[in-house]
Amino acid sequence: MADIIARTESSDMPRGTAMTVTTGPIRGSRKIHVGPLKVAMREIMLDPSCGEAPLRVYDPSGPYTDAAATIDIAAGLPEIRSDWIRARGDVEEVNQREVRPEDNGLNGPDRSGGVEPFPNVRRRVLRAKPGANVSQMHYARRGIITPEMEYVAIRENVGRAELRERAARDGQDFGASIPDYVTPEFVRDEVARGRAIIPNNINHPESEPMAIGRNFLVKINANIGNSAVASDVAAEVDKLVWSIRWGADTVMDLSTGRNIHDTREWIMRNSPVPIGTVPIYQALEKVNGIAEDLTWEIFRDTLIEQAEQGVDYFTIHAGVRLAYIPMTAKRVTGIVSRGGSIMAKWCLSHHKESFLYERFEEICEIMKAYDVAFSLGDGLRPGSIADANDEAQFSELATLGELTQIAWKHDIQVMIEGPGHVPMHKIKVNMEKQLEACGEAPFYTLGPLTTDIAPGYDHITSGIGAAMIGWFGCAMLCYVTPKEHLGLPDRDDVKVGVVTYKLAAHAADLAKGHPAAQLRDDALSRARFEFRWRDQFNLSLDPDTAESYHDQTLPAEGAKTAHFCSMCGPKFCSMKITQEVRDFAAKQNAPADTFIAATSETEAERGMAEMKEKFRLSGSELYLPTS
Amino acid sequence: MADIIARTESSDMPRGTAMTVTTGPIRGSRKIHVGPLKVAMREIMLDPSCGEAPLRVYDPSGPYTDAAATIDIAAGLPEIRSDWIRARGDVEEVNQREVRPEDNGLNGPDRSGGVEPFPNVRRRVLRAKPGANVSQMHYARRGIITPEMEYVAIRENVGRAELRERAARDGQDFGASIPDYVTPEFVRDEVARGRAIIPNNINHPESEPMAIGRNFLVKINANIGNSAVASDVAAEVDKLVWSIRWGADTVMDLSTGRNIHDTREWIMRNSPVPIGTVPIYQALEKVNGIAEDLTWEIFRDTLIEQAEQGVDYFTIHAGVRLAYIPMTAKRVTGIVSRGGSIMAKWCLSHHKESFLYERFEEICEIMKAYDVAFSLGDGLRPGSIADANDEAQFSELATLGELTQIAWKHDIQVMIEGPGHVPMHKIKVNMEKQLEACGEAPFYTLGPLTTDIAPGYDHITSGIGAAMIGWFGCAMLCYVTPKEHLGLPDRDDVKVGVVTYKLAAHAADLAKGHPAAQLRDDALSRARFEFRWRDQFNLSLDPDTAESYHDQTLPAEGAKTAHFCSMCGPKFCSMKITQEVRDFAAKQNAPADTFIAATSETEAERGMAEMKEKFRLSGSELYLPTS
Repeated sequence: MADIIARTESSDMPRGTAMTVTTGPIRGSRKIHVGPLKVAMREIMLDPSCGEAPLRVYDPSGPYTDAAATIDIAAGLPEIRSDWIRARGDVEEVNQREVRPEDNGLNGPDRSGGVEPFPNVRRRVLRAKPGANVSQMHYARRGIITPEMEYVAIRENVGRAELRERAARDGQDFGASIPDYVTPEFVRDEVARGRAIIPNNINHPESEPMAIGRNFLVKINANIGNSAVASDVAAEVDKLVWSIRWGADTVMDLSTGRNIHDTREWIMRNSPVPIGTVPIYQALEKVNGIAEDLTWEIFRDTLIEQAEQGVDYFTIHAGVRLAYIPMTAKRVTGIVSRGGSIMAKWCLSHHKESFLYERFEEICEIMKAYDVAFSLGDGLRPGSIADANDEAQFSELATLGELTQIAWKHDIQVMIEGPGHVPMHKIKVNMEKQLEACGEAPFYTLGPLTTDIAPGYDHITSGIGAAMIGWFGCAMLCYVTPKEHLGLPDRDDVKVGVVTYKLAAHAADLAKGHPAAQLRDDALSRARFEFRWRDQFNLSLDPDTAESYHDQTLPAEGAKTAHFCSMCGPKFCSMKITQEVRDFAAKQNAPADTFIAATSETEAERGMAEMKEKFRLSGSELYLPTS
Repeated sequence: MADIIARTESSDMPRGTAMTVTTGPIRGSRKIHVGPLKVAMREIMLDPSCGEAPLRVYDPSGPYTDAAATIDIAAGLPEIRSDWIRARGDVEEVNQREVRPEDNGLNGPDRSGGVEPFPNVRRRVLRAKPGANVSQMHYARRGIITPEMEYVAIRENVGRAELRERAARDGQDFGASIPDYVTPEFVRDEVARGRAIIPNNINHPESEPMAIGRNFLVKINANIGNSAVASDVAAEVDKLVWSIRWGADTVMDLSTGRNIHDTREWIMRNSPVPIGTVPIYQALEKVNGIAEDLTWEIFRDTLIEQAEQGVDYFTIHAGVRLAYIPMTAKRVTGIVSRGGSIMAKWCLSHHKESFLYERFEEICEIMKAYDVAFSLGDGLRPGSIADANDEAQFSELATLGELTQIAWKHDIQVMIEGPGHVPMHKIKVNMEKQLEACGEAPFYTLGPLTTDIAPGYDHITSGIGAAMIGWFGCAMLCYVTPKEHLGLPDRDDVKVGVVTYKLAAHAADLAKGHPAAQLRDDALSRARFEFRWRDQFNLSLDPDTAESYHDQTLPAEGAKTAHFCSMCGPKFCSMKITQEVRDFAAKQNAPADTFIAATSETEAERGMAEMKEKFRLSGSELYLPTS
């Protein structure tokens, strides 16, 4: 099944700069929409022989994987939340802040790289009416269940309904409160308490609501973005669609260099998942890369510019306080966060606390006017095993806790960013300290990487740490690609990073005891045991790769229905033998208990002699006809 | 630097079946041999600018990475242990058991696949003199420190000497007893207690001694082998050399189908690492794949055949007892171990305990005559998340504990194989139960895989579990490749599997608090911070991949000495800023403490004002000349 490619070729565009994204259903799946809110899910179809219903899975891939959807990148996605937002009566339309040349770099946009402005750009945007607060937290605290919360509840419940009968819950949840069933009221309560966020800017009505919190499914984020060195907007839009296809729950646009504004507009208008940014990156471009020249006014203007475009969460490194900076001087790798080092340079140059810290309440006023969530940045996160869990890191964390309280005073949604590079034995305390310092606000970590010695394999090094911290309670895991520390990820790297993090998040859900997480493992394992190869591929996180790996050894179509695999071959197969064991146990009329109960040697020996005789008398046939 | 290829083209061979293996130093490294025992290590050379000594690392790659070595695959490796073995005076030379057609499959060897017999085959082999026991455990328990133990001590100490001054030990060891410094006496004591094994058959004198035990570095195993469906002997010899190049500490030859004997001879004679096998696989081929036809005599003969060839450890599924088999009937994936299912079928067909269990003491007699170590197989390991930690699995584990005691009565070295598929929250109890049931005999696990849903990425799914169980005390981690569950690994898969497991083992060493493990992380992180790109590549587990990934974004040679990377570009770089922070802190004559101590608001404000004034008066220059 070939992927269909949606192509947008505007007549204004220079030749060869068409935007293409991958569309069409994921192999073996179809898109469904559940209930009056049309909550998007994916159904994995199974072979009729197994008698199992299609398996529903959580699906952030948006309309791109819907065979029935028409994709037009130049028009953007449908605005599914517009009516919900306007129905609340607390927003007004205003003229969008005019785009200035410096928004795309001091010398204006670079058209040579194919960065046309988004054709279908809005001139009018939404903003809270004066005095209003449009954040989901604000509604939640007033007892209002929004459609966004209802959407989240239905989405998070995938698989749970059919499991209601199951009595036993497995797993170790380290104090999380994962319900058997997610109600809209539960979502509201989690958002009101600050234990979960629903990042969805009122100017991003294209987004399908999702929650980040430790009592929900563990989420993952993928980073994309231009850099000053390489890549172009077409590649970034493609990476957005590609990363959500494989399961990214949110995407951060970390563009630097030129064309930042235009690139972001293309991304926002085509994204069904929340988009996060680090506004200081763009602000820095506006002052030609000179950190000392940054001002509150430039930063504030950048926040409004991005909030009007619809960015759903802002990473803000307001915890980098002047007093913490010298704590990094003796580190092996100093300050590795780009935002952190920008602010450190500013603080040292001006010798005062940063405007992010000083103006935090003013930032809150902007956030609440658009419902942008805070992702409080860990500017002093450790960049090496040697620097993990040091004074600088935990001092900043304490400050992020204080800032969380301030944001919550304004009913602004908050999550907290975390490390970084941390050896396994130091991961758990990160989670514990974060929960305590930040009042259970969702934690959002980069990995952490559990060694420093595996460049080229840092998706794996960090996947280990990510799975563990997800288990301990981390709500969202920021992916790391194989190119980490070495270069910019390409399409293949993005996919590998996303799939690695999906499996880490799933491992965490299983270990936490999410009530429905194991459904997919069980379905896949049954398919494996019954040699339903296609089902095995389709139930996997990456059906295309699974099938292509299988075909490298046994390419024939017949091998996909063969009752053996390439490991043991047709003559002998352990799975085949197990089936024989099962048949044998069933047909002997001797329930398993007979064997198990025969624990004394004498009993066992007598039992064995009897069975052997029975076997001999039956003509030594392993498979007796059913009587 | 291109790899040199050692090529062997015997005139007897059909055209195109030349054996080639990769030789030559790992990029940026050189082989060294330490002390009178010439213990092989690798030194990673660093840029002279950093003023650091070359970093020594543990190195199982053998002579293949030694620029000074001459490799002749048809002759095999030098027999470095011959003198040590013979000097003990407890072995005799005997004629090797004659090779029979069925040793290579019932219809004899298949020459079409290029499987020539190994040219330099021995006719005489070693065996313990009547009544003697040549196992390392036997020597250890009599208080003898063998050269093998001395070799291990030196090898395990890499990096420790220079760290003797360091006071603090970091890590959480869950009851392990990792010494600051490994003495030969410590090695002897660990082997005598059964907490470590040194697998080295007296007929495998080419092997460089190594230890498997939780108080030593965590080891990894790579599986290779022909299957009935695909692959040939040249590819398997190549995979052997390739897997140890990237760090496999032992290799298991899991060949099935035809040519098993010949394939193994090529592997044994060219392996500097211990080789393990599952003898029941070959025994099964001798009875044409019909499990019921297996007999003790055929199995016993196979053990002797393989012991004479030099196999260092045998996986023996003696814990599959008849009473446990029905416990698997209700599993989602039944019995997934090939050896386990062979024995299950045999047990059910004959309705009695297996000859592996019944004849265990007779097996011990063979093991002690050649110093073959037991790897007690987990024939009932779980093959899915649903089946993890069930009754069948733990019942078998208890039996493996009983068998361990029997083996130890004979002074035979033992390790215990473990699962399989286990969600994160059920991993630790596996380690705890194994330590308790098996008297601290080394644990050797396959992964475990922490989810079932990632075919194509099972090296990662299992790498997560492997790192965790290694931390908890598992002594050796059996790798899983990206092809697991789908097909046979090729060369690339073998490398990815090995590197993934090296990083998992290293993550475990770090977390356990191995005293010297972090040296390499620190060296790499310093190189990263100082933009010594070449050093960063060379210190990594896979310098070739690291450099090629870097070059995909910034291919120019100049970029490898550039003080920026592709993520931030030349204009702004967080690492560069950190250096400025550091310089600034140093040059202000204001020690870090001044900042930190200024905790009260007033003090802090006064301090800031002072600093700002100082900054202003100095002409607002960030970098003051050193006075």
